[in-house]
Amino acid sequence: MQEFLNVVTESIQDIKDHDKLEKFISFIEKAHRIFLVGIGRSGLVAKAFAMRLMHLGYTAFVIGETTTPRIEDGDLLIAISGSGETGYVVAIAKKAKEIGAKVVAITSAENSKLSKLSDFSIILRNRFGREVRDLAPMGTLFEVTALIFLDGTVAEIMERKDLREEDLAKRHAIENEVKVC
Amino acid sequence: MQEFLNVVTESIQDIKDHDKLEKFISFIEKAHRIFLVGIGRSGLVAKAFAMRLMHLGYTAFVIGETTTPRIEDGDLLIAISGSGETGYVVAIAKKAKEIGAKVVAITSAENSKLSKLSDFSIILRNRFGREVRDLAPMGTLFEVTALIFLDGTVAEIMERKDLREEDLAKRHAIENEVKVC
Amino acid sequence: MQEFLNVVTESIQDIKDHDKLEKFISFIEKAHRIFLVGIGRSGLVAKAFAMRLMHLGYTAFVIGETTTPRIEDGDLLIAISGSGETGYVVAIAKKAKEIGAKVVAITSAENSKLSKLSDFSIILRNRFGREVRDLAPMGTLFEVTALIFLDGTVAEIMERKDLREEDLAKRHAIENEVKVC
Amino acid sequence: MQEFLNVVTESIQDIKDHDKLEKFISFIEKAHRIFLVGIGRSGLVAKAFAMRLMHLGYTAFVIGETTTPRIEDGDLLIAISGSGETGYVVAIAKKAKEIGAKVVAITSAENSKLSKLSDFSIILRNRFGREVRDLAPMGTLFEVTALIFLDGTVAEIMERKDLREEDLAKRHAIENEVKVC
Repeated sequence: MQEFLNVVTESIQDIKDHDKLEKFISFIEKAHRIFLVGIGRSGLVAKAFAMRLMHLGYTAFVIGETTTPRIEDGDLLIAISGSGETGYVVAIAKKAKEIGAKVVAITSAENSKLSKLSDFSIILRNRFGREVRDLAPMGTLFEVTALIFLDGTVAEIMERKDLREEDLAKRHAIENEVKVC
Repeated sequence: MQEFLNVVTESIQDIKDHDKLEKFISFIEKAHRIFLVGIGRSGLVAKAFAMRLMHLGYTAFVIGETTTPRIEDGDLLIAISGSGETGYVVAIAKKAKEIGAKVVAITSAENSKLSKLSDFSIILRNRFGREVRDLAPMGTLFEVTALIFLDGTVAEIMERKDLREEDLAKRHAIENEVKVC
Repeated sequence: MQEFLNVVTESIQDIKDHDKLEKFISFIEKAHRIFLVGIGRSGLVAKAFAMRLMHLGYTAFVIGETTTPRIEDGDLLIAISGSGETGYVVAIAKKAKEIGAKVVAITSAENSKLSKLSDFSIILRNRFGREVRDLAPMGTLFEVTALIFLDGTVAEIMERKDLREEDLAKRHAIENEVKVC
Repeated sequence: MQEFLNVVTESIQDIKDHDKLEKFISFIEKAHRIFLVGIGRSGLVAKAFAMRLMHLGYTAFVIGETTTPRIEDGDLLIAISGSGETGYVVAIAKKAKEIGAKVVAITSAENSKLSKLSDFSIILRNRFGREVRDLAPMGTLFEVTALIFLDGTVAEIMERKDLREEDLAKRHAIENEVKVC
């Protein structure tokens, strides 16, 4: 546990590239609608960010959910894949580009298929070696730092737009308020 | 198999109450946004209809999915429960009513909690006895007839609005078109 | 509505190929574990059948859900796609074959990629022409008949194993029984 | 962003109660099967941990997914709720207790309904005041620290069982390996 917490803490120190954040937020701001895609635990991070985008007042959807509309020209796809090589995610990103949507990659691999076809990439590098992967297996560090980076982006948007917690809470879905005996 | 098909065929004969259909469509037409809720296989029927509502051009959401917004005054909740007593579905319907949304129940139980608190109910009666439940267990007939009734409603809306299959197909989500080697 | 119900009723008449059913059930019986896959509304039909397989006592999983294990040699994949050409479903079926699992296709297209790579196919033919597609768009008839065929398979398995509704109900997930005030 | 990262880093310092970890792992080890439940973003954290439990070789399920079986005596429910008052989660936990399963709460609220009815609670306290909630709204800090605590638990289990990344990777679901053109 302690060793894992140290590794996470060090990884957090690496998330601070302000130029990148500026540009990422401008992609979000300019988009007509925002779509998220990911597979496995990266897909869960995609959903966590999509939910906050909705709370912030953006129109956001997750690829694969029931009423997600067809992506269109003017929309933004945020594609999350540590390796940047996940077949399904690359295929969705390719299709979105064909249609004319913008694509932003969240990945740890600069030269991956996903990065190459994206309009812009947030690279969350993992500077740890092989031994850390028996502590944080199968992309764990990427997933945790991606969630933290994206929640930090939410903090940044709230500050810039002068939003309070209440402004988001009023969009909280009703299943959170079901009353039981 | 044959016996099950006979039972389903007979059940389909019972879905034709045109007054009900008229009123159901008018609830859909008047709604600002349409929310669907159900648990288990009734939840899958809810999703199947929600997807078609999106294809038809309505703004539709499924309760519990990632970016489903908070239901509001002016919205419609379509709640699907065979027994009309499913705790979670009743709780969501109650909350939606409190907020000022309309609620339509799709159920087989006229005097259930769900029917009583709804603005309007579609009752899909099951006129078969105990023995049919070893053939079509745990609400199977309700689920199948609910899906058919709701898809029949889609057919009716398409006819009234003079929509072609192409009009719906242009809203088909992109994950259906992923290309593989 | 009425016209749609007639078309569904006629389609149900076509589901009765007993040789096919025999062989389908034997694939299910011989499998170590059963995996289901589908996209869009075919994916919802896949889930509806997977849930009943669990209720019947089989070990069943849906591809893409959180704790679905890796498919292995000895497992069965049931792949549902009307066109038999859905990229993602074909890719999953191909991968399952590589690993050594059996694949059964539920499809309306005999010569599709999915049928060709499957060990066995249930073909649910759609004998209606173009005009029916403005009534039952985008695979609606396939989805409805697939659900009915699969629920008929459940009826058949219950009869052969002499199972009562109670035998399935005891495996009913607890979220159906949540109590609310 | 920077301020948010500082707050997260400080929160991580608080996750180190080794007695708690010992007992948490022993609940996991003794369980026949492990069920996870949560709503909203806590539900996503529940799924992230459930997936890793499967990778580690445990039998794990998420409440509400298609083939999740009925919870039984001898099973463990891990219930995640920051406030410990989320109606649906409390109702599921209550039902699990009635059936005879053990319940472990992951929460930030020691005296909540969820904590009180659980056999054991992991309390992830949030020692920040009101102002931090405009930076990390609606339970963000709880969700992030819960994910990190649970991933740290995975690291701990791997170390104790001498597991390598490869041991988990061999259970990686096949949708991660779909090949596209």
